[in-house]
Amino acid sequence: MHINETHDPSLTSWVATANDPASDFPIQNLPFAVFRRAGSTETFRGGVAIGDQVLDLAALDPATVGEPASAALALAQRDTLNDFMAAGPAAWSALRLALSRLLRAGAAAQQHALVPQAAAEFSIPARIGDYTDFYTSIHHATSVGRLFRPDEPLLPNYKWVPIGYHGRASSIGVSGQRFPRPKGQTRPASGTDAPNFGPSRRLDYELEVGIFVGTGNADGDAIPVDAAEAHVFGLCLLNDWSARDLQAWEYQPLGPFLAKNFATTISPWIVTLEALAPYRAPWQRDAADPQPLPYLDYPALREAGAFDVELEVLLQTATMRREGQQAASVSRSNFRDSYWSVAQMVAHHTVNGCGLRPGDLLGSGTQSGPEPEAAGSLLELSGGGKAAITLPNGEQRTFLEDGDTVVLRGRAVRPGLPRIGFGEAAGTVLPAR
Amino acid sequence: MHINETHDPSLTSWVATANDPASDFPIQNLPFAVFRRAGSTETFRGGVAIGDQVLDLAALDPATVGEPASAALALAQRDTLNDFMAAGPAAWSALRLALSRLLRAGAAAQQHALVPQAAAEFSIPARIGDYTDFYTSIHHATSVGRLFRPDEPLLPNYKWVPIGYHGRASSIGVSGQRFPRPKGQTRPASGTDAPNFGPSRRLDYELEVGIFVGTGNADGDAIPVDAAEAHVFGLCLLNDWSARDLQAWEYQPLGPFLAKNFATTISPWIVTLEALAPYRAPWQRDAADPQPLPYLDYPALREAGAFDVELEVLLQTATMRREGQQAASVSRSNFRDSYWSVAQMVAHHTVNGCGLRPGDLLGSGTQSGPEPEAAGSLLELSGGGKAAITLPNGEQRTFLEDGDTVVLRGRAVRPGLPRIGFGEAAGTVLPAR
Repeated sequence: MHINETHDPSLTSWVATANDPASDFPIQNLPFAVFRRAGSTETFRGGVAIGDQVLDLAALDPATVGEPASAALALAQRDTLNDFMAAGPAAWSALRLALSRLLRAGAAAQQHALVPQAAAEFSIPARIGDYTDFYTSIHHATSVGRLFRPDEPLLPNYKWVPIGYHGRASSIGVSGQRFPRPKGQTRPASGTDAPNFGPSRRLDYELEVGIFVGTGNADGDAIPVDAAEAHVFGLCLLNDWSARDLQAWEYQPLGPFLAKNFATTISPWIVTLEALAPYRAPWQRDAADPQPLPYLDYPALREAGAFDVELEVLLQTATMRREGQQAASVSRSNFRDSYWSVAQMVAHHTVNGCGLRPGDLLGSGTQSGPEPEAAGSLLELSGGGKAAITLPNGEQRTFLEDGDTVVLRGRAVRPGLPRIGFGEAAGTVLPAR
Repeated sequence: MHINETHDPSLTSWVATANDPASDFPIQNLPFAVFRRAGSTETFRGGVAIGDQVLDLAALDPATVGEPASAALALAQRDTLNDFMAAGPAAWSALRLALSRLLRAGAAAQQHALVPQAAAEFSIPARIGDYTDFYTSIHHATSVGRLFRPDEPLLPNYKWVPIGYHGRASSIGVSGQRFPRPKGQTRPASGTDAPNFGPSRRLDYELEVGIFVGTGNADGDAIPVDAAEAHVFGLCLLNDWSARDLQAWEYQPLGPFLAKNFATTISPWIVTLEALAPYRAPWQRDAADPQPLPYLDYPALREAGAFDVELEVLLQTATMRREGQQAASVSRSNFRDSYWSVAQMVAHHTVNGCGLRPGDLLGSGTQSGPEPEAAGSLLELSGGGKAAITLPNGEQRTFLEDGDTVVLRGRAVRPGLPRIGFGEAAGTVLPAR
């Protein structure tokens, strides 16, 4: 993706908070969400983050942005972003350019179109027709595999197939999601036949990147890997909550089901691929790793197939919340360490003719880094529940407890460029019903 | 479910073809679909099958059906049945009763509201938010398991957990669906590392029953098993097309993905649970089988937990079609042989708090009977591709070839009662692109 005037690091905004180097939302970012004023009965509509404000797209006169952006603006004003996503890269780019010019220092301030983020509530940004979860971190696959199969941590298909499976769309919630601890069957105790039943005792988070499909493909037509990124609208944060004890008992032979489908939390903000263009990274491969099959290989892959996005998990227990302590960092990793790229996920998903639709969501799978402390789940950090981690206030965790809030954060950072942040995806575990 | 006047076997209709004992659609059936005149640009709307006709619900004046059915009629006139499904059993029942009275011999004929089924085209009857596929036939699970694990055909969780996994909603099509043979990776030849890539060589059908959710549940709230059937709108036929060679290579550790998500074909007609009430059957269990856990057990299960629905697979090759030969029967089974019931699928799906929505679709999994010739897939009928089956014209099949059309049929039959049919779910394999 070409770098254009919207990426110019010298740009500043008339929204002063966007010029704070610590802000997730400088004028070079411009991520999209769907929002309304919190507690109101207003219609949800598209918004763009700028500093600590939301630019209310429905409050903008189309004449303000001019052609060709006004048609894109009309689509982005709706109560989901699906139609805007379906409009394709030229429309996304035209609106980004117009909003960049509108928000720049020197342009006429549009105070009437700003809503403080702190006064907004968000909805899922798109009607998600289908949700697919991948498994692209080789570090996660290896460390989880080692817990179950010490002799063969990584299965023979891993370096050939971008492994994925279908998840549940209806239980995806936006940051702030709260859900009861899931109940279900778990493996029988040794020497007994009957499984146990009750609330999960091994409830976990998974640190993932979400990928929103923009333009789809016709059923039966594969998307070539070198055209795949043009079908991607942008990235968000995604917590694929997982009940490890339910999963261990149910997952053979058809994969995870009740262990995953009770809740999935995403960030409200979708950072576009265009915003991320200056933050690309080389693809991570060892010399001994096989070349991908031709349908997964493309020239730009090796130089810039990955995204350099720092990811972080933070945890706030009920005790910490009661005592006024902020969420504590538990681990950090980076999306650039993914074994499979975004373009490869899209190409693989459609190689059999499967149709993707605007607003479909792909999860990257848990993003764990190469170091043990960069693991994206408690399962890994606790060595399968054997070694508790200790929080700054002295509390310990092997898995999540009732009242725990997990916060995911992400940011693209590059020397000489402003930081491009993802906001956060926060979710809270309630007691089992 | 109580038997009421709509089930009276002596009822006949002023639509003469409904009174033919060979019709799938006597007045006791009254299944719902969404249709329009074929080749037209009319709006799709709800319809009910009667003999060889569709009763066009949008052509009925609400006053014709009176209260309380008129409100239900208004919902069933829309271009998907989701809102009607959400209205619940009282609404479904009220409309069924009103339509039964409207269509009875002696009532004023409403010829203006009839469209010949042969002149209609159908759409997916509901907007399917999520599609879940189960694995409820112990005969299928055992015979497929034996191909992979001769020592342990049935996994230890099978008799405790109604195994299910998430499928792809966007690739579900209505009867008449045509799709290219899927391409993908298959297991490396012995002694080599790199997988093969190309069109699937082991393309198969799966004979399943589809279950449409009517009323949903709030996220976090489980549906008790003894209340579960009130959440089910009705049943249809479902072909879960499967590429066995893609599946064998991709499915570890997270389950089937590209092997399934290229196409799934359902019948246009949904037969309501109320229509099926006289055709219930005892639950099938051996004395040695364990009692289900309490959340899966309910008093009515043993006497009438199952549905006595005969299922059949027919195959028409391109040669047969060219030579004017009808599709030939390949195998027959019965939904009553399912190990897990419809109510148990719903209770299990929601026990962790997963929310179901009106219009969600559950697949029963391949329904194979206890006899080898009652297998619901070619994988089983051909012993894993080792022994071809021979069709009446002498052609042989281990797996499907290009141009093959697979037709599923189903019917509930009971002495002294009219036959209640499901119509058909037909789909055709096109050459790979």
